[in-house]
Amino acid sequence: MYRARLTILGCGSAVPTITNNPSGQVLEMCNKQFLIDCGEGVQNTMRQMALRTARLYTIFISHLHGDHCFGLPGLISTWGMMNRTQDLHIFAHKDLETLMRPILDYHCAHLPFEVIFHHIDPRRKNIIFDDRTVQVSTIPLRHSVPTCGFLFEEKARNRHIIKAKIDELHIPYAAIPDIQQGADWTTEDGRLIPNAELTLPPKQPFRYAYCSDTGYKPAIVPQIQGVDVLFHESTYLEEQRDAADRYQHSTAKQAAKIAAKADVGQLIIGHFSARVLDQQRFLAEAKEVFPNVTLAEDRKVFDFE
Amino acid sequence: MYRARLTILGCGSAVPTITNNPSGQVLEMCNKQFLIDCGEGVQNTMRQMALRTARLYTIFISHLHGDHCFGLPGLISTWGMMNRTQDLHIFAHKDLETLMRPILDYHCAHLPFEVIFHHIDPRRKNIIFDDRTVQVSTIPLRHSVPTCGFLFEEKARNRHIIKAKIDELHIPYAAIPDIQQGADWTTEDGRLIPNAELTLPPKQPFRYAYCSDTGYKPAIVPQIQGVDVLFHESTYLEEQRDAADRYQHSTAKQAAKIAAKADVGQLIIGHFSARVLDQQRFLAEAKEVFPNVTLAEDRKVFDFE
Repeated sequence: MYRARLTILGCGSAVPTITNNPSGQVLEMCNKQFLIDCGEGVQNTMRQMALRTARLYTIFISHLHGDHCFGLPGLISTWGMMNRTQDLHIFAHKDLETLMRPILDYHCAHLPFEVIFHHIDPRRKNIIFDDRTVQVSTIPLRHSVPTCGFLFEEKARNRHIIKAKIDELHIPYAAIPDIQQGADWTTEDGRLIPNAELTLPPKQPFRYAYCSDTGYKPAIVPQIQGVDVLFHESTYLEEQRDAADRYQHSTAKQAAKIAAKADVGQLIIGHFSARVLDQQRFLAEAKEVFPNVTLAEDRKVFDFE
Repeated sequence: MYRARLTILGCGSAVPTITNNPSGQVLEMCNKQFLIDCGEGVQNTMRQMALRTARLYTIFISHLHGDHCFGLPGLISTWGMMNRTQDLHIFAHKDLETLMRPILDYHCAHLPFEVIFHHIDPRRKNIIFDDRTVQVSTIPLRHSVPTCGFLFEEKARNRHIIKAKIDELHIPYAAIPDIQQGADWTTEDGRLIPNAELTLPPKQPFRYAYCSDTGYKPAIVPQIQGVDVLFHESTYLEEQRDAADRYQHSTAKQAAKIAAKADVGQLIIGHFSARVLDQQRFLAEAKEVFPNVTLAEDRKVFDFE
């Protein structure tokens, strides 16, 4: 069993190549699925992979370049034809709704579900999604149009009850929730049993940060400090640094520097330029700075823990 | 050498499957390329096939269901980034321009070429494209929204000069064009040489008809009579005839009946429903009525002659 699963639907950059479609990935954690970016072909790849999306209620769009959002009309239209009934929540810059509404009204007039746009401000660090188990925040990035990454954080879990101890002390069932939250227990004869004797600590909450597209921006480091997994774009190599600076993208080395500074558990790099034919070069360049790095690949599935 | 080439980019129906993307195909004839329909993923498949599109100036959209046009923004955007300079002409129902202009203005603000929309009336049989070598006409079809097929016709070619005869009679170079067009020749001593002794007849002009999406419509037969190749949709099997009637699509048998009535040279069927898992069943059903039939397949290339 994995704590989180990441399915790469596309990890190319603006121009699709023989191996890479434009951006799109599904993050699965806490029994929910989150679609992050939706370039052209995302629904095609989902179908080719037979990816089930029954728990996918939310889509997060980092910015409004076509390679990150042109797949939305087709995906929504297909879900309509497949009689999806769960409402769909899209978190994106407000212009997306302006652009998409006429398309949806025309092509998807009688959807059996609602499409609800949530306008986000990519320039601010905000909590944009918050439920019982997961919180999602924006990570303001540096790109040619307003762009943000997304930090997905599992909420702190309850402490694990030591069952034998509960039985031994005859603690009633009704008291368990408080103890799971950290409460101590006082026995009938007045003895105080500290929580640490009754419970074990929960696992550390899982945290995933998605940072694409962006020029090198060390200012994001405090926000993503210590995440389990960082996906960071790596459009170019250091030898293409001029292009990286001009188009506000990162090199593999820059992605690795961010991972090292933020001391993340694992780095995945993607959003590769079509101009680099041997993608192992991205890996080699990043590894020099941060060893625990993996190349994204279209249709690759990462299971964490 | 082929007289015409057809590259299938997608031959599925509305919902993409593991094998089939939505509609799109490139017809190559008379040294020109025509893109017919542009469902989501057309540009991705073009790139995967390394299809060169240097002679692709025109796109023909049969109707405005998403599986026939959602690939346009991505394709146009990518051509912009690849510094295409040739203007692009899109022939489609007028609503396409209304829907696409805001998308192009926003996402493709500084294209190095013009996108020119030509509004067609799918309910009328009209010549919509006409140049030195090719003519394209609409074929009004029967579908839930205004829809037309397209008839691509090579123009009549010049007759072939019999070189030995020209030399023997000392016919001057300046007279050749008229003779290629069918003129007779009078020698200096007044003898009339009939054109049939000076030339051989040209090849019959190549004709290709694309008919998707449509319910069974025998009224199109006179217009497509004797075409070399007919692409006809075959969304369903006869056992799904109810669905075919309800959604105004054709069965494989109905496609074959149209091919037989129009006495076409070759039938290609496509636009297969995701509900039929074994596509050989379409072939078997059609073959009973019209033997020279082939299944379309994504990425299949048909060379004619």
